[in-house]
Amino acid sequence: MSAAPAMNAPRPTIAWMGDDTGFLRLIDQTLLPTVDQDIDCRTVEQVWEAIKSLRVRGAPAIGVAAAYGVIVGCQAARSADRPEFDALLSRTLDYLATSRPTAVNLFWALDRLRDFSAAQPANLSSADLLGRLLMEARLIENEDRAMCAAIGDHGAPLLADCSGVLTHCNTGGLATAGDGTALSVIFAAARQNPDLQVYADETRPLLQGARLTAWELMQRNVNVTLICDSMAAWVMKLKRVQAVIVGADRIAANGDSANKIGTYGLSLLAKAHGIPFYVAAPSSTFDLTLTSGDDIPIEERTAGEITNGFGRQTAPDNCPVFNPAFDVAPATHIASLITERGVISPVTTENIARMVGKR
Amino acid sequence: MSAAPAMNAPRPTIAWMGDDTGFLRLIDQTLLPTVDQDIDCRTVEQVWEAIKSLRVRGAPAIGVAAAYGVIVGCQAARSADRPEFDALLSRTLDYLATSRPTAVNLFWALDRLRDFSAAQPANLSSADLLGRLLMEARLIENEDRAMCAAIGDHGAPLLADCSGVLTHCNTGGLATAGDGTALSVIFAAARQNPDLQVYADETRPLLQGARLTAWELMQRNVNVTLICDSMAAWVMKLKRVQAVIVGADRIAANGDSANKIGTYGLSLLAKAHGIPFYVAAPSSTFDLTLTSGDDIPIEERTAGEITNGFGRQTAPDNCPVFNPAFDVAPATHIASLITERGVISPVTTENIARMVGKR
Repeated sequence: MSAAPAMNAPRPTIAWMGDDTGFLRLIDQTLLPTVDQDIDCRTVEQVWEAIKSLRVRGAPAIGVAAAYGVIVGCQAARSADRPEFDALLSRTLDYLATSRPTAVNLFWALDRLRDFSAAQPANLSSADLLGRLLMEARLIENEDRAMCAAIGDHGAPLLADCSGVLTHCNTGGLATAGDGTALSVIFAAARQNPDLQVYADETRPLLQGARLTAWELMQRNVNVTLICDSMAAWVMKLKRVQAVIVGADRIAANGDSANKIGTYGLSLLAKAHGIPFYVAAPSSTFDLTLTSGDDIPIEERTAGEITNGFGRQTAPDNCPVFNPAFDVAPATHIASLITERGVISPVTTENIARMVGKR
Repeated sequence: MSAAPAMNAPRPTIAWMGDDTGFLRLIDQTLLPTVDQDIDCRTVEQVWEAIKSLRVRGAPAIGVAAAYGVIVGCQAARSADRPEFDALLSRTLDYLATSRPTAVNLFWALDRLRDFSAAQPANLSSADLLGRLLMEARLIENEDRAMCAAIGDHGAPLLADCSGVLTHCNTGGLATAGDGTALSVIFAAARQNPDLQVYADETRPLLQGARLTAWELMQRNVNVTLICDSMAAWVMKLKRVQAVIVGADRIAANGDSANKIGTYGLSLLAKAHGIPFYVAAPSSTFDLTLTSGDDIPIEERTAGEITNGFGRQTAPDNCPVFNPAFDVAPATHIASLITERGVISPVTTENIARMVGKR
């Protein structure tokens, strides 16, 4: 087999351009996968609109974008006195918080900058405070990047002997400032083994696998093959993959992991084929107040996502639909949990508490 | 719970209207599920186009439509002498055979009418031969209808204790002259239990479940809930279904059953949940020359079905795709095979040979 071409460097999903007079550059994810185009946000209204309209999505990425949005929003008061700057900062934080009212990372990032500025000396100039806020926003970005890298480093050895791996939904750089979670493990493994073949489920109903994961892997020059969700079992049967790796939205104390609908079935199919099933997620995803996955509420979403998903009606008018957004892979199906702190295996309540019990 | 309203009578997919001066009426399946409109075929060119353009689809339905197409094509020679009629009949048969060159039932039906006419007295008038050909076409339709009904009758007791059942793809009246195969069992069960809940997989990539099965069930007033394929495992986990029933394209001597992609995974998921998995198909689907499913070739179809399936491009340009049209559920996962001759259970080579070994 000829040597595979080298992996491409990541194209940044989020980038701050320049110094504290600079601007925020985002990949406009609403145009993917057919158009790859940046959007430059030079006003806080543009940042708000980008978050609101899902031009930037994925919990960590939203947090980072909002943090930089604060810088953009306060630039106008750079030369003003502090009371004026502080008033603008406060308005900017409140305004950005209205962009996606259910995004936990959004509030987390905005609160962090609010607390940070409150802890700065009162006699600091507006220009200096703006500079320090930019440093803190960069820190948020860099922490996220480091988290992704650590997950990748910890997880890559688990894929060392794989010629193929299957993934579901999008858990990559488009959702984070770095390489993502499960996709970070895949990127790290592909750096070691450029022939690695990644099978990406298209992930109905919203097709994050087809639209985003396939795009990211192609953009990075990692071998990807897109399949429909219903084909995953057959891909396992044909022995085209030796591992399955997915992300998680919430992980209970016993390791039961809620993730995009389809994950539960994949975990069962992997088990039946003797293929290890891995879940990669930061330690912040664990909710140790939940004893098991039975305590995780499952959001049901609108019928239209299934019946009118892509510019065309594909089911009869008024067709009844069941559209759970998530399901739960039981800990007993999970070979390892991969976090930025290390790998948890076997997946037991005790091992989880030991790794992520202390914040 | 209040009594469910009665099941509606089937709306005919294919109907011959009138006597041998009549015409063929079809549901235009290309307009489903949003528009429910008939197409009346009064010329053989219209029948040819309807088959070619998938206005009528499903192997048995194509055979029946082609048989009636022969009548439409020969009406012009009703008053002509026999040589002229026979020449037109021959041209009509040859012409219709070009509509879908891979449809086995198409050739089977045309050959049957060719053999039938050859067996008629040479001194029969053209009008009388046309009348007899119409009777033979009606016989083909009625045999198909009876096959569907027998499958339904044999299979319904297996669903007697179910409050919910899951199905995949379209195996209903739209693909046959009668009630279908797996859907015929569901219709028969729903007549006994009007509260039966049917979960229909949308069946990517071509969405036969969303477009056709959901439409048929709604049209017949049977309770249907549409789900994405990736949700089937979760529906089983939630105990919403107590059986899975699908059709088959080809069944090997040992019972391994090739069917629409996704079937293999469903069979495994059903087994893991302790839910019986049934395959309903006419005895003509069995190919006893194939020892096992390993001998069944799996067609791979074009990438565009996955990347451009919904009237919009949903994956990157040139994205590599794996698109197997079928997979194989192993006999060990199948609780029963349901044929028009009876139920085969347990599914063994011996039991299959006993039931369908003699044609």
